[in-house]
Amino acid sequence: MKPEHLPTFTVEPWVVREPRLDLDAMGQTESVFALSNGHIGLRGNLDEGEPHVLPGTYLNSFYEVRPLPYAEGGYGFPESGQSIINVTNGKLIRLLVDDEPFDLRYGTLGRHERVLDMRSGTLQRDVEWESPAGRAVKVRSTRMVSLTQRAIAAICYEVEVVHAGDDDNGDGALLVLQSELVANEQLPGRNPDDPRLETALDNVLEPEQSRAGDSGATLVHRTRQSGLRCAAAMEHEVFGPDGFEVSTDANEDLARTTIIARVKPGETLKVIKYLAYGWSSRRSLPAVYDQVRAAIAAARYTGWDGLVAQQQEYLDDFWATADVEIDGDAELQQAVRLATFHVLQAGARAERRCIPAKGLTADGYDGHTFWDTETFCLQVLSFLAPDAAADALAWRKSILPNAFARAETLGLKGAAFPWRTIRGDECSGYWPAGTAAFHINADIADAVKRHVAATGDTDFELEVGLELLVATARLWRSLGNHDSAGNFRIDGVTGPDEYSAIADNNVYTNLMAQQNLRYAAEVAAKHPRAAGRLGVDSEEVASWRDAATAMLIPYDERLRVHPQSEGFTDHQRWDFEHTPAENYPLLLNYPYFELYRTQVVKQADLVLAMQIRPDAFTDDQMRRNFAYYEGITVRDSSLSACTQSVMAARTGHLDLAYQYLAEAALVDMHDLAGNTDHGMHIASMAGTWAAVTLGFGGMRCELDGLSFAPGLPSSLSRIAFGLKWQGRRIRVSITPDEVEYQLLDGAPMRFRHHGEPIALDDEQPVTVAIPPQEWVEPVEQPYGRAPRSRG
Amino acid sequence: MKPEHLPTFTVEPWVVREPRLDLDAMGQTESVFALSNGHIGLRGNLDEGEPHVLPGTYLNSFYEVRPLPYAEGGYGFPESGQSIINVTNGKLIRLLVDDEPFDLRYGTLGRHERVLDMRSGTLQRDVEWESPAGRAVKVRSTRMVSLTQRAIAAICYEVEVVHAGDDDNGDGALLVLQSELVANEQLPGRNPDDPRLETALDNVLEPEQSRAGDSGATLVHRTRQSGLRCAAAMEHEVFGPDGFEVSTDANEDLARTTIIARVKPGETLKVIKYLAYGWSSRRSLPAVYDQVRAAIAAARYTGWDGLVAQQQEYLDDFWATADVEIDGDAELQQAVRLATFHVLQAGARAERRCIPAKGLTADGYDGHTFWDTETFCLQVLSFLAPDAAADALAWRKSILPNAFARAETLGLKGAAFPWRTIRGDECSGYWPAGTAAFHINADIADAVKRHVAATGDTDFELEVGLELLVATARLWRSLGNHDSAGNFRIDGVTGPDEYSAIADNNVYTNLMAQQNLRYAAEVAAKHPRAAGRLGVDSEEVASWRDAATAMLIPYDERLRVHPQSEGFTDHQRWDFEHTPAENYPLLLNYPYFELYRTQVVKQADLVLAMQIRPDAFTDDQMRRNFAYYEGITVRDSSLSACTQSVMAARTGHLDLAYQYLAEAALVDMHDLAGNTDHGMHIASMAGTWAAVTLGFGGMRCELDGLSFAPGLPSSLSRIAFGLKWQGRRIRVSITPDEVEYQLLDGAPMRFRHHGEPIALDDEQPVTVAIPPQEWVEPVEQPYGRAPRSRG
Repeated sequence: MKPEHLPTFTVEPWVVREPRLDLDAMGQTESVFALSNGHIGLRGNLDEGEPHVLPGTYLNSFYEVRPLPYAEGGYGFPESGQSIINVTNGKLIRLLVDDEPFDLRYGTLGRHERVLDMRSGTLQRDVEWESPAGRAVKVRSTRMVSLTQRAIAAICYEVEVVHAGDDDNGDGALLVLQSELVANEQLPGRNPDDPRLETALDNVLEPEQSRAGDSGATLVHRTRQSGLRCAAAMEHEVFGPDGFEVSTDANEDLARTTIIARVKPGETLKVIKYLAYGWSSRRSLPAVYDQVRAAIAAARYTGWDGLVAQQQEYLDDFWATADVEIDGDAELQQAVRLATFHVLQAGARAERRCIPAKGLTADGYDGHTFWDTETFCLQVLSFLAPDAAADALAWRKSILPNAFARAETLGLKGAAFPWRTIRGDECSGYWPAGTAAFHINADIADAVKRHVAATGDTDFELEVGLELLVATARLWRSLGNHDSAGNFRIDGVTGPDEYSAIADNNVYTNLMAQQNLRYAAEVAAKHPRAAGRLGVDSEEVASWRDAATAMLIPYDERLRVHPQSEGFTDHQRWDFEHTPAENYPLLLNYPYFELYRTQVVKQADLVLAMQIRPDAFTDDQMRRNFAYYEGITVRDSSLSACTQSVMAARTGHLDLAYQYLAEAALVDMHDLAGNTDHGMHIASMAGTWAAVTLGFGGMRCELDGLSFAPGLPSSLSRIAFGLKWQGRRIRVSITPDEVEYQLLDGAPMRFRHHGEPIALDDEQPVTVAIPPQEWVEPVEQPYGRAPRSRG
Repeated sequence: MKPEHLPTFTVEPWVVREPRLDLDAMGQTESVFALSNGHIGLRGNLDEGEPHVLPGTYLNSFYEVRPLPYAEGGYGFPESGQSIINVTNGKLIRLLVDDEPFDLRYGTLGRHERVLDMRSGTLQRDVEWESPAGRAVKVRSTRMVSLTQRAIAAICYEVEVVHAGDDDNGDGALLVLQSELVANEQLPGRNPDDPRLETALDNVLEPEQSRAGDSGATLVHRTRQSGLRCAAAMEHEVFGPDGFEVSTDANEDLARTTIIARVKPGETLKVIKYLAYGWSSRRSLPAVYDQVRAAIAAARYTGWDGLVAQQQEYLDDFWATADVEIDGDAELQQAVRLATFHVLQAGARAERRCIPAKGLTADGYDGHTFWDTETFCLQVLSFLAPDAAADALAWRKSILPNAFARAETLGLKGAAFPWRTIRGDECSGYWPAGTAAFHINADIADAVKRHVAATGDTDFELEVGLELLVATARLWRSLGNHDSAGNFRIDGVTGPDEYSAIADNNVYTNLMAQQNLRYAAEVAAKHPRAAGRLGVDSEEVASWRDAATAMLIPYDERLRVHPQSEGFTDHQRWDFEHTPAENYPLLLNYPYFELYRTQVVKQADLVLAMQIRPDAFTDDQMRRNFAYYEGITVRDSSLSACTQSVMAARTGHLDLAYQYLAEAALVDMHDLAGNTDHGMHIASMAGTWAAVTLGFGGMRCELDGLSFAPGLPSSLSRIAFGLKWQGRRIRVSITPDEVEYQLLDGAPMRFRHHGEPIALDDEQPVTVAIPPQEWVEPVEQPYGRAPRSRG
């Protein structure tokens, strides 16, 4: 773990407040304060643009291609990658006070407070500033990316003159606001040595059209290589003392609305800036242009207050189900809400586009989408925003042609989904941790199964699920083979743990493939005509079932644990005792070959298999496996703590589960990975919710029903969470000795509590006791890698 | 195998003759006709420079650096590579006949013959050409790279006027010869998709000095990045009809001596061109300049005839030992001599520089040196040119600082020699088949052991061997580990077969490491003071012996064969039956992941282990293993056929051994790999000699003595070969039923013949019978991959 920054935020239940400007943490706050609706993402940059760490305005799936170079190439290595790009920046509002630019690095900064309000979905900033020449102003800006009007962002920018200078003759100060659209912003250089970072692409937008009106403008650009067209439009409403002037000019890469007003002390100049974004790979310039003009007209029609009200309503509805309450740890309470909020922001309006690993909060990982979407985000969204989850899987279906082509290139059948991508093509430049990570295909199938279980949506199962399941089952059938003893083997693949690679019979992969094959067989049998149209016949379904039944799951009889992959437990244990703290993450300080051949786990792999496939393990195996892998897992990936939390809770280590929950939830607020400036860890945010529900809630959502097995760590007095389940809304409130289950709305239901059947027939809560915990032997983490103790 | 080109060469015992110009095979002939002494390499380009496939003039270890790019980098990935470069071309002699350039693409070509004479070490070219305007000339050029004067090459260029044109008024034709030094020649573009090829580097030489004299000139250049300085000088002697004029001019990248003569029909203009090359990374410009001027002065002093005589004498001495006689296959006879000749050329005067995989015949593999040197070339040179072998190992010792640094980067002790390099730094850009191929370190130790056994050179053992052995033993000790059962494991490495990678307990690697550790312990014990200076104590030596004794050698009890690596025999067999011929080599048509996880072998791996470590296998295991691996080995590497030949012979498959010998020997004359234009396959050339001596000769040279177990394939009536052994010269002549052993010179000796002790007390040949061959069950190769049947 990197030494954490001093906390920048105050602890409050529903807001994240930065009480004073912290320039050293600016990269982090730009990410934490990023606003997004899954379509548009605005980093939390200052209105005036500078100082900044990374200016960022993103549109989901708007990317440029770049060549992927290799010192030594190989067959099937992807030749070009896709990188999300910083599009036209519409956040910019520069202010001049009597010809002095409002810049926090000059003059005297009084108050500087920023507040992200998770209930209103706005970022508010309050500044008191005195210019070098002694003019004092208060600036308040409120920014939103609309969750209800997908193409729209808006800013309310207010400047009050407090003191117009000692030489003020009563006229007040002359304020000049320059509200801009800026394309091809220069981006700061990046560290080329860290493989986790993104590639800088400069000047990628080719200007196509710029038009200025009186109080707004539109810029249209096109990417040079990928040929995508993007339009950005702005319009302004100005409220201020009489006599202000508004004018707009635009050239290729810059549009600027200038508002000039003389403002006396006590008076306020207020500007509402509406922003609209749109892009298309196919539509004509006039069509894209008109699209953003229409969006901005609708936004103006709704008005600022209307947009604010819609946002509040949307979020009220969301939180009514989604809110997780944590009693006994106020900081964690805040962090869990922030986590949930960012998962919503990443997925809410992605609408058949991808959900990137960093959401739209920065360009880390080049803006790519990985298995994070299905395995982490969708386990939240299927229960809190099922439409968004269905859309994400529909996106997967939409890239099936790319996945079919990739499989063909690789000599395989079915679909080979890309390890990392924006629009469907494999963008991984290191195949042992890219192409070889075939588990992503089973992760997608698992997300389909989970989504069907959570929603009961049989239309989705047929229309989206079936083809994904068939395509992935075919992949597994061709990727694996029956050996002479009849076992079905999957050799030479990489599981979730990226500190091992290209191993035989990775237990996670094989169990997930087994589930994939079985579920595909089941769904194909349920929809024989639709399956038939995909060329599925009963022989093929039988071969899936055979493979699933014969799936080889290695087991180490000597140690009585499951090896992560065949032979894994024969390897030497990493020398944790002689690994200094500053050498983590190990991948930046040790070669892959050393990591691969040693027992050291970057992130939950076998432990994740136990989370998703508990049916494949006995309770004793789960306890022994958890203890074994706990001793060699270093959590160099932010995808790990949440899973370790779930399995710690399920194996009776509730206090440890609490530490891991806190680590997952606080990864960005405490910048635990040291790279929050490159974007929010959306999967860890999502894993926070999983840790609460699947871990402390002991929730399992299978096709045959829902079950809970709650337990509470000793430091917390209550955890409550809610979810949607098959058209219902349910709330679960866990206290040390008992649990209250409540059906908030929807039809009567049955579920299991610690194995016992429970019925919720109406909205009357049902309270049941939690059985006493058995004592379990404590587990140990590698030297120096225990989660930070809490409480 | 690529479809072979039509044979371009006539079959003759001691020369390789191209009877007429074959433009389609020009890339191949440029390589086959390349002349080198291990320091200078001149491709067999035409004197006049064009047409060409690849112009090439190389100096051993004269390289430029280039960045190694990665789509996704990783810790320890080399950041820059070294690429051999085409230096100043001094081969160029352009001819104008009455203002018409002598260019084979114009006018009328009569005779065009090129002859590489392996006894004289010269390339002679005879041309009869009539210009478009009807002037007829005969051109004879004879080119040599001196084996005795290391810095020198020379050309004798003669033009006879046959017919001076119908308009000749008796004055004859005006001949203009332009003899040049050209730096920064433009090189043809290359196919960027084939990872086996080199990188084009253009315009890399920065001019430092150019000076012209009357009949010669000198150019000094320096590489831009690597900062190496190279000087090239030429001088001319002209013999011709009275009145010729000689002048020279030089600018930065070009020096030109112009010789003008009026030559009547029947008269000849003859020019001797002396070329000298030198380079240094440290010496000053004047020093390097003077060095080549001194060399050229010495060459002129020796004179053309003197150089020719020295060359002949050198080669007479060489062939007296080295000649391999093959009775019954004239083409193979020729090919074996060419192979031996090219191995000599690659290593003769390398003198503490590397011996690249392609020698100095082209820039394939960027001019890099691999394990080919120790495992293939030195098994010839230690017996035929022991000083060259000692120098090559002294070069390895000289790059120990780089290997120590690399080991440290990798977190290992001792030395990690580069998988591919020119001057010692790792230049491999794909670590699974680079860094992970640690076996190169044991291959170096094996070459030390073999060299000591072959020469009895205990000074070498102490001065060069000891430090190499200690450094490599330390590597193995830190790379492997004792597991809980006490076995010493070496996990996650890549053996010789590059169609598998990053596997545990590769048998080849473990056996070679075992030998490395044991031999290091033995030599350290023998030289305790010198070892002590290297920090070796008895505890460390004991730890090497322990590791060697406990070395894990996996064995598949079910199949009763050794798996190439642990788990290998559990993998699916490659689907050879459905692999079309045009999909070989597989690495160009299938992804690594598919190759790695399947039973398909690019090149001898376990089979090579049996060649080098026969003591580790029973005869029955060798037969069974050979048959098993024969069935899955596709020979997509030219390093394979020779080893398969050796082990086929040793397991009783003498006729199969003969097919493989022919494939190894003919790889370049028949362009079997389709890439001879990128350079000669020096390791396969060297393997040819190994196939003869280790295979048909059944030779084993151990520290405790020499032994033979000869056998002859049915198609051949006799194979004879010679070698140097501990200061003696020996000749072995094998006929179907008996063998004649003769001590050509040196002290009396003992050795074993098929296990029986034999004494050679004087130069009197001793003839002994060959025991009858047992019948062995035939073996099969993968579908379509049998060697071409011969005879």
